[in-house]
Amino acid sequence: MIVVMQPTASPQQVAHVVERIEAMGLEAHAIQGTDLTVVAAVGDDRKKEGAQLEQAPGVDRVMTVLAPYKMAAKESQPSRTTQVALGPGCVFGGKQVPVIAGPCSVESQEQILASALAAKAAGAHALRGGAFKPRTSPYAFQGHGEAGLKMLADAREATGLPIVTEVLTPSDVQQVAEYADCLQIGTRNSQNYKLLEACGQQPKPVLLKRGMAMTLDEWLQASEYILAQGNPNVILCERGIRTFEDHTRNTLSLSVVPELHYRTHLPIVVDPSHGTGHARLVSDMALAAVAAGCDGLAIEMHPDPEQALTDGAQSITPAVLTQLMVRLQRVALAVDRTCEAAV
Amino acid sequence: MIVVMQPTASPQQVAHVVERIEAMGLEAHAIQGTDLTVVAAVGDDRKKEGAQLEQAPGVDRVMTVLAPYKMAAKESQPSRTTQVALGPGCVFGGKQVPVIAGPCSVESQEQILASALAAKAAGAHALRGGAFKPRTSPYAFQGHGEAGLKMLADAREATGLPIVTEVLTPSDVQQVAEYADCLQIGTRNSQNYKLLEACGQQPKPVLLKRGMAMTLDEWLQASEYILAQGNPNVILCERGIRTFEDHTRNTLSLSVVPELHYRTHLPIVVDPSHGTGHARLVSDMALAAVAAGCDGLAIEMHPDPEQALTDGAQSITPAVLTQLMVRLQRVALAVDRTCEAAV
Amino acid sequence: MIVVMQPTASPQQVAHVVERIEAMGLEAHAIQGTDLTVVAAVGDDRKKEGAQLEQAPGVDRVMTVLAPYKMAAKESQPSRTTQVALGPGCVFGGKQVPVIAGPCSVESQEQILASALAAKAAGAHALRGGAFKPRTSPYAFQGHGEAGLKMLADAREATGLPIVTEVLTPSDVQQVAEYADCLQIGTRNSQNYKLLEACGQQPKPVLLKRGMAMTLDEWLQASEYILAQGNPNVILCERGIRTFEDHTRNTLSLSVVPELHYRTHLPIVVDPSHGTGHARLVSDMALAAVAAGCDGLAIEMHPDPEQALTDGAQSITPAVLTQLMVRLQRVALAVDRTCEAAV
Amino acid sequence: MIVVMQPTASPQQVAHVVERIEAMGLEAHAIQGTDLTVVAAVGDDRKKEGAQLEQAPGVDRVMTVLAPYKMAAKESQPSRTTQVALGPGCVFGGKQVPVIAGPCSVESQEQILASALAAKAAGAHALRGGAFKPRTSPYAFQGHGEAGLKMLADAREATGLPIVTEVLTPSDVQQVAEYADCLQIGTRNSQNYKLLEACGQQPKPVLLKRGMAMTLDEWLQASEYILAQGNPNVILCERGIRTFEDHTRNTLSLSVVPELHYRTHLPIVVDPSHGTGHARLVSDMALAAVAAGCDGLAIEMHPDPEQALTDGAQSITPAVLTQLMVRLQRVALAVDRTCEAAV
Repeated sequence: MIVVMQPTASPQQVAHVVERIEAMGLEAHAIQGTDLTVVAAVGDDRKKEGAQLEQAPGVDRVMTVLAPYKMAAKESQPSRTTQVALGPGCVFGGKQVPVIAGPCSVESQEQILASALAAKAAGAHALRGGAFKPRTSPYAFQGHGEAGLKMLADAREATGLPIVTEVLTPSDVQQVAEYADCLQIGTRNSQNYKLLEACGQQPKPVLLKRGMAMTLDEWLQASEYILAQGNPNVILCERGIRTFEDHTRNTLSLSVVPELHYRTHLPIVVDPSHGTGHARLVSDMALAAVAAGCDGLAIEMHPDPEQALTDGAQSITPAVLTQLMVRLQRVALAVDRTCEAAV
Repeated sequence: MIVVMQPTASPQQVAHVVERIEAMGLEAHAIQGTDLTVVAAVGDDRKKEGAQLEQAPGVDRVMTVLAPYKMAAKESQPSRTTQVALGPGCVFGGKQVPVIAGPCSVESQEQILASALAAKAAGAHALRGGAFKPRTSPYAFQGHGEAGLKMLADAREATGLPIVTEVLTPSDVQQVAEYADCLQIGTRNSQNYKLLEACGQQPKPVLLKRGMAMTLDEWLQASEYILAQGNPNVILCERGIRTFEDHTRNTLSLSVVPELHYRTHLPIVVDPSHGTGHARLVSDMALAAVAAGCDGLAIEMHPDPEQALTDGAQSITPAVLTQLMVRLQRVALAVDRTCEAAV
Repeated sequence: MIVVMQPTASPQQVAHVVERIEAMGLEAHAIQGTDLTVVAAVGDDRKKEGAQLEQAPGVDRVMTVLAPYKMAAKESQPSRTTQVALGPGCVFGGKQVPVIAGPCSVESQEQILASALAAKAAGAHALRGGAFKPRTSPYAFQGHGEAGLKMLADAREATGLPIVTEVLTPSDVQQVAEYADCLQIGTRNSQNYKLLEACGQQPKPVLLKRGMAMTLDEWLQASEYILAQGNPNVILCERGIRTFEDHTRNTLSLSVVPELHYRTHLPIVVDPSHGTGHARLVSDMALAAVAAGCDGLAIEMHPDPEQALTDGAQSITPAVLTQLMVRLQRVALAVDRTCEAAV
Repeated sequence: MIVVMQPTASPQQVAHVVERIEAMGLEAHAIQGTDLTVVAAVGDDRKKEGAQLEQAPGVDRVMTVLAPYKMAAKESQPSRTTQVALGPGCVFGGKQVPVIAGPCSVESQEQILASALAAKAAGAHALRGGAFKPRTSPYAFQGHGEAGLKMLADAREATGLPIVTEVLTPSDVQQVAEYADCLQIGTRNSQNYKLLEACGQQPKPVLLKRGMAMTLDEWLQASEYILAQGNPNVILCERGIRTFEDHTRNTLSLSVVPELHYRTHLPIVVDPSHGTGHARLVSDMALAAVAAGCDGLAIEMHPDPEQALTDGAQSITPAVLTQLMVRLQRVALAVDRTCEAAV
């Protein structure tokens, strides 16, 4: 932490800041510059509340130096990158780039089975589908709940594909974990800390979507809520952020892929469906994500997008997914990864 | 809903869209323009999934016409504006502009009592303080839980001020509602729909903070989750949005105050503390909020901000609050409202 | 400038950074922390290119300490605040809060004269109107050019109101300065440095609008381009920033008012018309701006907004302006300022 | 244009809107829905000021249907995509994906020559470098002006690479066009309409960078300013937008690549250097841009980034560029394009 004093700060004000830093159990170094003085605090201040030093007289602002996360940081696990397996053919964090495909919602037994078969036929590595749906409108379809989970389990049995599905609230975690191979935490719950903790207290992998307005520091701190409870199987998922852009539902920020690889050992998946909101943009952005170095993809695919109960505008068809899988593998190989279709 | 066809769309494609709209139980009007055709859908399409018509061949985009909320809309309650009372001297939605003041967190019995006495002495109308804290970092102070609720109740007994406190998860709603006079839903939980529903199933007023990246449509839909469960006592709270600005913690968007008055009958409170993140900006923005027409204020005040366990940088002192209350009343009177100090 | 090393940086890498800082003529202090080392550079580094030290091996990032502007900074002029006069009854930066009112564009002799008379009758202190218009579309009305300037001058003669009008390009500066009492630099030209310099080389006051995506540091640096050429008469104008919000044309960020008063001695004007884009929000936001402490207002007013050639949606009528002037004075007095109608 | 009436609008108010639309020379269709009435205006309203209809009594809002650009629209040139040549080996808009490489600024004869030779050796197709620099700070290096243009011309002579350089103001256009093979309009001048027009009045290709806060509609309208003056050789360049993200200098929005291909016939280049601000992210984002389907790249490369006068943090070295060119070609081939190194 660096405390920047105002240009007019008095020696007494600097001394007071030094004292306050020392009272926190940190070492203080005051450096007098030509225009102003800064006071550097030495020591691990992650658990200290340094920001309120801004209120001390003569202080201009407080700047943070240390990353606010520990277990998610690359330094905490220097020799290897985390690998998270949803099943033998679906491991995130290695050379392979698995593809999770499926509809936004589990609409019916027929729909999810058709989706699973189409995903399998196209070569996808896991099936997604929501049984519990967080809908912006209270009047919209809210999902089938446990019945939906059972339909997903049946689809897994029919295809062998592991299943990824969302959990909305702590009291549902156990139930969802019984059916799913991976629990998804959605963008609206990305800082629902009770839910993060509950997902950290069970062993199934967790796909943690980025909040719409989350910085990387906040995202990694959210992951740390899960890690700190003892579950190391966290997959980060970029799904677009909210900006002024209006040609897409969200702005897919692919630069997080290399930056997260610089900061954390956790695998990074990209969701080009929510990241764009329009089916016509999904394939190109999926290819771009692989070229940027992502560790996996989550793609919305629906047997009949025009009739989908949710997110139809951004769902691609089985035919498009089939073509896309071939293209993904070409790009993956070009960047020394592989996205070989599952068999 | 208006479906805009591509300039190159064929008559068959237009006919298909007409058919799809009619299949939704809506009436379709195709209007052929000089450059392109649009198809207007007539009827209440709030519960329809119109967006996926974007996937129909020849469609460029789908535009929404109806507001996606109903109970929160001004039309649903044309003759009066909702008034929400936390106690006899603290009613939101009328001529009075009540002030909720208090620390970010309940830190100890002494601290919350000192805060309550200071708030009371300054003339504030309610006491705020968090017993359950949603902290970005898992290593930060997480609040005292039920013990904190009891301290708040004691502070209420000592001062007569009604208390506002945050609830984080559905399973805590009943407990928090037993102690609090108003349940706060924080920005990170603003689209935690299970929590919204749980708060809608009990009768205590709910202070619903705006999500950091929420549009007004989304915010009003979130309020509708509470209203639809039978609790009409919803207060909206603007607390700043996330933008590129870096001189404040968030960008306080005061234009939502008159715009919400145009759209909804619910009262609107402004939180200039989170809305700026810096104590030195709080008073001026509180005055601005009152001038803009807000129905109340939520202000962080701490007996010793420099030593606060949370949000010290944005908490004002009791002395500043005391001065501010006088200034608020002057501005309130200038816009034909009142912010008279409580007695 | 503070250089933050990576946790894994070697002593040689730290030594290299120290050497590089010293080669810039600055003093270097390396501070070894528990997790990593930081190197503080002492001296005025405003004219140094410190950011590229990020490329030195072992460096994580470079943080700036000094404000990047000098002449605009409060420290450079501690004993007084800049006052900028457009005429005897229109001084920005003092106790008075002058109001600039008028149409977006000068449309015709009749229209600008009617506007000027209405502004005068309402009690406004200056007249605005564009002769050169920066239009997003090349097909939209681009203004009357010099003919428009003459119409403005006639309107001034008829009413005595000083005139504010926009200049788009360096080669027009001299001509516009001959007619206008204040040159406006629009949001799209806020970093058009050749234009800023040209406006700095003449003595008329300059109203510098904030760029749609400008930070305060960038804005003050833009003002410094004008100041550094010898023209001290700069007025800053907040007119909204671009964010994800869609209920307004821009997000009016009123917190810049107190923050700019903390950082700079230059006066700050607020434009609630562009800041909202909707006439129904203008009055409330004008009142809020005064309560927040602004030094003036710029408001679009048109004799017949429904027929305006430009910006009709955000222009208020003369009748609304007349009422607003009364309300502004009430709020101004409530915050110990004055917005007395001109006579 | 669709005018949405308020739910409470009277038949007279609807009739007034119909009348106003007809007075604009458009046809009006009023459609009465269950909740409200909309009035559709038929005809080319691109040159009408429809937005101010919002001010008519009973109107809620006005929605635009037609794209606000014409010459840039795909429909205006359906049979082919624009191809823009900087030289025989550097054509944008075809199968080839040319790479423009070079330093941010022309610093000296030696530096730009070394840069050109390195770019040539790596296989780049054009050389970039700024002689006129738009710097945020008035105290920063502003470029060598015409002397810099001469150095660029010498570097072209030595290597055969066409040169791309920025022009800041209309009065410089002729001079810059004499030296350069392509004129760059920077992000801060993207809505400097006088400059756009001046560049449209000369025949050299124009690289039009996206403004930091520009929507696609605004960007294409800016391009239309150039096209409308008779210069068809416009290349669009995505260079990142301003958002809340702080891990990069800007947020590189790659989804604009497929979306622009959907909307316009103009070629699209991506600048991953400004788009990230950090050299360590440039290569991965360049690969992603090619996978997304871009028509070219603009990359900052400096012989010694750590010592660069400008933008050192985001400039890659010649060695990194050399490797990158090989990787780009692999990805280009994987998406059926080519990025073969120039010879």
